[in-house]
Amino acid sequence: MTPNLIREVRAFVEEEVRPLEPRFFRDGFAAVEPALRALRERIRALGWWLPPLPKPWGMGLSLSEFARWSEELGRSPLGHYAFNTQAPDIGNMEVLLRHGSEAQKERFLRPLASGEVRSAFAMTEPEHAGSNPVWLSTTAVLEGDEWVINGHKWYTTGFEGSAFCIVMCVTDPEHPNPYARASLIIVPSDAPGLKKVRKIAVMGEEGEGWASHAELRFEGVRVPRENLLGERGRGFAIAQERLGPGRIHHCMRWVGIAQRALELTCAYAARRELAPGKPLASRQAVQHLIAESQAEVHAARLMVLDAAEKVEKLGAEQARMEISAIKFFVAGVLQRVLDRAIQVHGGLGLSDDTPLAYFYRHERAARIYDGADEVHKTVVARALLKAHGVEVSL
Amino acid sequence: MTPNLIREVRAFVEEEVRPLEPRFFRDGFAAVEPALRALRERIRALGWWLPPLPKPWGMGLSLSEFARWSEELGRSPLGHYAFNTQAPDIGNMEVLLRHGSEAQKERFLRPLASGEVRSAFAMTEPEHAGSNPVWLSTTAVLEGDEWVINGHKWYTTGFEGSAFCIVMCVTDPEHPNPYARASLIIVPSDAPGLKKVRKIAVMGEEGEGWASHAELRFEGVRVPRENLLGERGRGFAIAQERLGPGRIHHCMRWVGIAQRALELTCAYAARRELAPGKPLASRQAVQHLIAESQAEVHAARLMVLDAAEKVEKLGAEQARMEISAIKFFVAGVLQRVLDRAIQVHGGLGLSDDTPLAYFYRHERAARIYDGADEVHKTVVARALLKAHGVEVSL
Amino acid sequence: MTPNLIREVRAFVEEEVRPLEPRFFRDGFAAVEPALRALRERIRALGWWLPPLPKPWGMGLSLSEFARWSEELGRSPLGHYAFNTQAPDIGNMEVLLRHGSEAQKERFLRPLASGEVRSAFAMTEPEHAGSNPVWLSTTAVLEGDEWVINGHKWYTTGFEGSAFCIVMCVTDPEHPNPYARASLIIVPSDAPGLKKVRKIAVMGEEGEGWASHAELRFEGVRVPRENLLGERGRGFAIAQERLGPGRIHHCMRWVGIAQRALELTCAYAARRELAPGKPLASRQAVQHLIAESQAEVHAARLMVLDAAEKVEKLGAEQARMEISAIKFFVAGVLQRVLDRAIQVHGGLGLSDDTPLAYFYRHERAARIYDGADEVHKTVVARALLKAHGVEVSL
Amino acid sequence: MTPNLIREVRAFVEEEVRPLEPRFFRDGFAAVEPALRALRERIRALGWWLPPLPKPWGMGLSLSEFARWSEELGRSPLGHYAFNTQAPDIGNMEVLLRHGSEAQKERFLRPLASGEVRSAFAMTEPEHAGSNPVWLSTTAVLEGDEWVINGHKWYTTGFEGSAFCIVMCVTDPEHPNPYARASLIIVPSDAPGLKKVRKIAVMGEEGEGWASHAELRFEGVRVPRENLLGERGRGFAIAQERLGPGRIHHCMRWVGIAQRALELTCAYAARRELAPGKPLASRQAVQHLIAESQAEVHAARLMVLDAAEKVEKLGAEQARMEISAIKFFVAGVLQRVLDRAIQVHGGLGLSDDTPLAYFYRHERAARIYDGADEVHKTVVARALLKAHGVEVSL
Repeated sequence: MTPNLIREVRAFVEEEVRPLEPRFFRDGFAAVEPALRALRERIRALGWWLPPLPKPWGMGLSLSEFARWSEELGRSPLGHYAFNTQAPDIGNMEVLLRHGSEAQKERFLRPLASGEVRSAFAMTEPEHAGSNPVWLSTTAVLEGDEWVINGHKWYTTGFEGSAFCIVMCVTDPEHPNPYARASLIIVPSDAPGLKKVRKIAVMGEEGEGWASHAELRFEGVRVPRENLLGERGRGFAIAQERLGPGRIHHCMRWVGIAQRALELTCAYAARRELAPGKPLASRQAVQHLIAESQAEVHAARLMVLDAAEKVEKLGAEQARMEISAIKFFVAGVLQRVLDRAIQVHGGLGLSDDTPLAYFYRHERAARIYDGADEVHKTVVARALLKAHGVEVSL
Repeated sequence: MTPNLIREVRAFVEEEVRPLEPRFFRDGFAAVEPALRALRERIRALGWWLPPLPKPWGMGLSLSEFARWSEELGRSPLGHYAFNTQAPDIGNMEVLLRHGSEAQKERFLRPLASGEVRSAFAMTEPEHAGSNPVWLSTTAVLEGDEWVINGHKWYTTGFEGSAFCIVMCVTDPEHPNPYARASLIIVPSDAPGLKKVRKIAVMGEEGEGWASHAELRFEGVRVPRENLLGERGRGFAIAQERLGPGRIHHCMRWVGIAQRALELTCAYAARRELAPGKPLASRQAVQHLIAESQAEVHAARLMVLDAAEKVEKLGAEQARMEISAIKFFVAGVLQRVLDRAIQVHGGLGLSDDTPLAYFYRHERAARIYDGADEVHKTVVARALLKAHGVEVSL
Repeated sequence: MTPNLIREVRAFVEEEVRPLEPRFFRDGFAAVEPALRALRERIRALGWWLPPLPKPWGMGLSLSEFARWSEELGRSPLGHYAFNTQAPDIGNMEVLLRHGSEAQKERFLRPLASGEVRSAFAMTEPEHAGSNPVWLSTTAVLEGDEWVINGHKWYTTGFEGSAFCIVMCVTDPEHPNPYARASLIIVPSDAPGLKKVRKIAVMGEEGEGWASHAELRFEGVRVPRENLLGERGRGFAIAQERLGPGRIHHCMRWVGIAQRALELTCAYAARRELAPGKPLASRQAVQHLIAESQAEVHAARLMVLDAAEKVEKLGAEQARMEISAIKFFVAGVLQRVLDRAIQVHGGLGLSDDTPLAYFYRHERAARIYDGADEVHKTVVARALLKAHGVEVSL
Repeated sequence: MTPNLIREVRAFVEEEVRPLEPRFFRDGFAAVEPALRALRERIRALGWWLPPLPKPWGMGLSLSEFARWSEELGRSPLGHYAFNTQAPDIGNMEVLLRHGSEAQKERFLRPLASGEVRSAFAMTEPEHAGSNPVWLSTTAVLEGDEWVINGHKWYTTGFEGSAFCIVMCVTDPEHPNPYARASLIIVPSDAPGLKKVRKIAVMGEEGEGWASHAELRFEGVRVPRENLLGERGRGFAIAQERLGPGRIHHCMRWVGIAQRALELTCAYAARRELAPGKPLASRQAVQHLIAESQAEVHAARLMVLDAAEKVEKLGAEQARMEISAIKFFVAGVLQRVLDRAIQVHGGLGLSDDTPLAYFYRHERAARIYDGADEVHKTVVARALLKAHGVEVSL
């Protein structure tokens, strides 16, 4: 992957994706979906389809190559969607690719990878803290050749309009190892008994389609036995494996957001006048906010690239500490950089005339989903303290 | 004002106002307006109408009495509205009371104070930085017995549905003192030539009625000469005077928000389980966030009450440093306390199932409006450095 | 206590105590001790002896009166010493006054209160974490009419040159309540078997006399049975009682330090030129550091005064949350204010040409002694969470 | 440079240099100087002499190779000294190497590079802010074949016991470009008229020899014309050039300090018990401090290495923004990591029983010398804002 290619991707996002933002902010996801569909055709024609997936599914970029790419896509809230690398679909594709049967690949991965359909991933439950992932109440019981699923899930991103959903269910409640009690099962989104209770308003917005989060009830939902994804009892292991590189993607997307916020800040500070001929950028307080953001964004970028290289060399398991470190470090940088950007923009920063307010409210979640800051800090400490003979429990 | 009264007010907000919140978050301001109107009748019957306004308009509480009251009202986003002390109306009432002619009081103050109508205050302009208030382009020219107003304003809170608007206009552009160039003029909201360009989506929400912010164009708007509010050329002086106690109200409202966020956090941490029988509150990280918020909220409360007492004793002018100090100090506390509250609540904190996300996104403005943090820090430093012979310019 | 009196005390500290500082920084405590002794005579003559102690021992100020006084004394590292209210002596006096027998008062309190001798308080042990105060290895066993003491203590402030030492010893190791196992025993500093291992270099300085911290070994030290101070088994209860008001004194001393650091910062920023005619204070970054310190110092002051009033009204036990809140809140403010002061002073701030570097290095301990930040945060959280039915263990 | 070599260097510092620390902390620099001299012989024998200097003077490591090496040396306050790469000598060597005449190299560089003598660098003046480097009052006037120097300098590190001093003097006060008015002149430390006013007590310690900072007066000091170092009028340019790589060295030394502080923290938290069998490391607050330090130290390391590579590729001038970014970013990380380390260590962290207190007090200077945080933030903002057409003045 050449620096030149990265520049081309940046230009593409700038020229083709960004112009859709105002409409997206004003009218929602459905309003821009047709335009995004058209963009995807052009991306396919450019040979840029699904950069992180191996050929023939995608471009076959390495993790650290795609990390750089992900920064560029992150500069727009629609960037990843345009390239079909949006969460949760890209993670689902990776899981299907690694653990899916040939039939599952044909039926579920193929339309997902081609962009014909979307999918969801149902793990979190309203009654149980995400920091204790093994404590779940959704169950799947094998009755004859069918799994019968009962349970309650929420924050199921992109469920609305999806074709199917990968669901974490307790299948072996008596297994002595609590990490071996759950399995992943593929459930068509229109399965009888699968009820969307509501879309959850996140920071005041229900959103729609991909840009929405559902609360779901599974009431005696039945799917064929072969919808088990991967081995029985390996649900957590597969989810963990899915999350490792997924966190690299997220973190680098955040770097892209932060970098864009910084650039908007510089441009605005240079343009906005405090008095005729005296730009806002002449204020030392503004200059210093800009400098702090520059240093932090670059530190975040280097941290993610370094973690990506470690994953490539040693595998996600060996890089667990690094992955947890970037998860909370980069999420913190993102929040601070966005906060500074809004402060410099003043009233404008609160409006939807820039993407800052969108990022500010929606990326507050960065410090919470896929493991809250507190969980990842504990993982890092656990790794360091292990060498000193201390067992830290999560 | 007895501690008992404060407890009664707290109970009233808890029992009567809070139940309206879910509907407000879900369906917007118009959906709860009838219920609020009914509440106002009960408040009036209890003798609690307009606590900070002198009798016979209101209850006649002192500034520091109302500060405590304001904390209680602040615990709900609808609390101040229920008592008719919401911004910008309460500030407009105070200005009309002090500077309005008898005719203006009759025509504009009376319906405002009785809650029949709402009003707006149009000062900020999109082209000019709020930190340089004297740099305005909206002009009012006297033609015969009429002011002819041309200009562009934005963030005019509550304009939609208002009866009138108080507008800051340059009336004396050649005056040697730049602080003596502008005047306040009352403009009926339906005046010909006064055009609402749009409602500004703040943090993604356009809102409606009182809970919305308009961008306005004044194109040859004509109002009678007697709509000048206060003396000609005293626009900034009056606005500044309006802002002093107004900042006390705001800051104490923020203390109320922060206090409620802290209480929600404690309750949630106690209720939410990490594992059967093990509450989230057993985590040291959670305990420490709670403790930091407790200390900061109480410090903020004491700071505001202390500033209110200083204003009462010495006047707002003498307490300018203290007012600026609380403006940035309390806004900072508010943001941190809300951030911690959301972090502890996890996914729930991002949803509208609690008021935290509403406060989080809408009160980000606290560090910007009525003077950004940076402006108020400079005011504080200017006061301190003056004693050392240094002139700090804003 | 009139505001006038406070102004006189401030002037006294400024004119009489501060001039001793350069010599203290350069040559140590012994070099200024004679001058301090002379000052004490003048203070006695002014009727200002021992402000917080009841008459006839001292002036009989209330806790919140002395809090204001303590701020003034705190402005110099020698201020409290000049008024004989330095730690640990003032705390020891309070314990002796409340719990000492008449004979103990005559023999130990009288010379201490008159300033003839100094004392020490030996509690902390190098082998045991201070956050678990009940875990001690120093024992006292009654053999006939004598306590025989064995153990290891450190950070025994002011031991060098002291007349006696109050020692926390386990006397009842089998008591079912771990908080009822220890007692306080008075030990003459020259008792056989009491060995000073060393003075601990704190931030590189061993210091001397009052301004030093000893590591001690008790090897079969024998004192008469009547040297037990207060009831047997009440050691922790008495120490806790001693610490409550003691923390108010400390916190208000810190406010005094912070206030002085802020004033030095303003004066320096006004005096120091970046270029001819352009003071350092013209920098916005400097202005904002000053403003943040002003707000924080005043918040800290109000918090301590508020806690002092609560202790006066309801007793230290009822104000435990407030005392813990100020302990970590004010210590944090102090550290940040000193850090900013040094940053503004640049190279000068690192030197001993101002008191800033002395405060910076010695008051780092503020976040550690008398309970680390972490312990006090837990105490605050425990108090808040109790109302929600959660038991937080320390 | 192989990873293996780095491990050997780490082991050498651990086994040979660290054991000297307790004596250094207790008895000062002179007490360990003979042992350091002996160590240098061993280092020379190992072929590790002067790693960053080109052959035959040193090992000829590249900047980024030496950056890694510098982290290892930074783990002990005596590490760089042992390898003769201590400031200010290593910087002076680099200046002499690039700009010295052959005679200067023979007379001044040779004994410096061999470790026979030490040197100093006199730039900062007590009367003038370091953030305006061109405002100096020390002058050098050519009288016949001699420079006659008059002026006042301070913070001249290592002057005591040095052989010579490189002095920044105004030689061309009328030059239109203020950056072209000063020159560097080599002055023997025993030159008549060069008076050491005092050693400045930094954080309470005067220190001695290399570990001390002098205040100097130049009163008619005369040196031969040929002691001009580099071109006349190029003093600032050369100093700037000297500072670029020097900041890389400093920053990486700080990373070494921070890394060691973190390792000490983990070891202590694992070893120290809160109660029998319950280590301090079991506290979540401690775990999270450790995790935050880990993330920040690694970010700092990556930032410095990235800047070093940029300097290697594009030169120090092109990497000016990156160098300024690491200067304030890494100094901030260092301070926070040391602060956390002390907090976890409690009372022990304040003593000189660990190196933490030494680092804490002496490295507070990191945010001040070689340009304060504020200056470097402005440099970063200037670079970013230039692209937007804004000229930021320092």
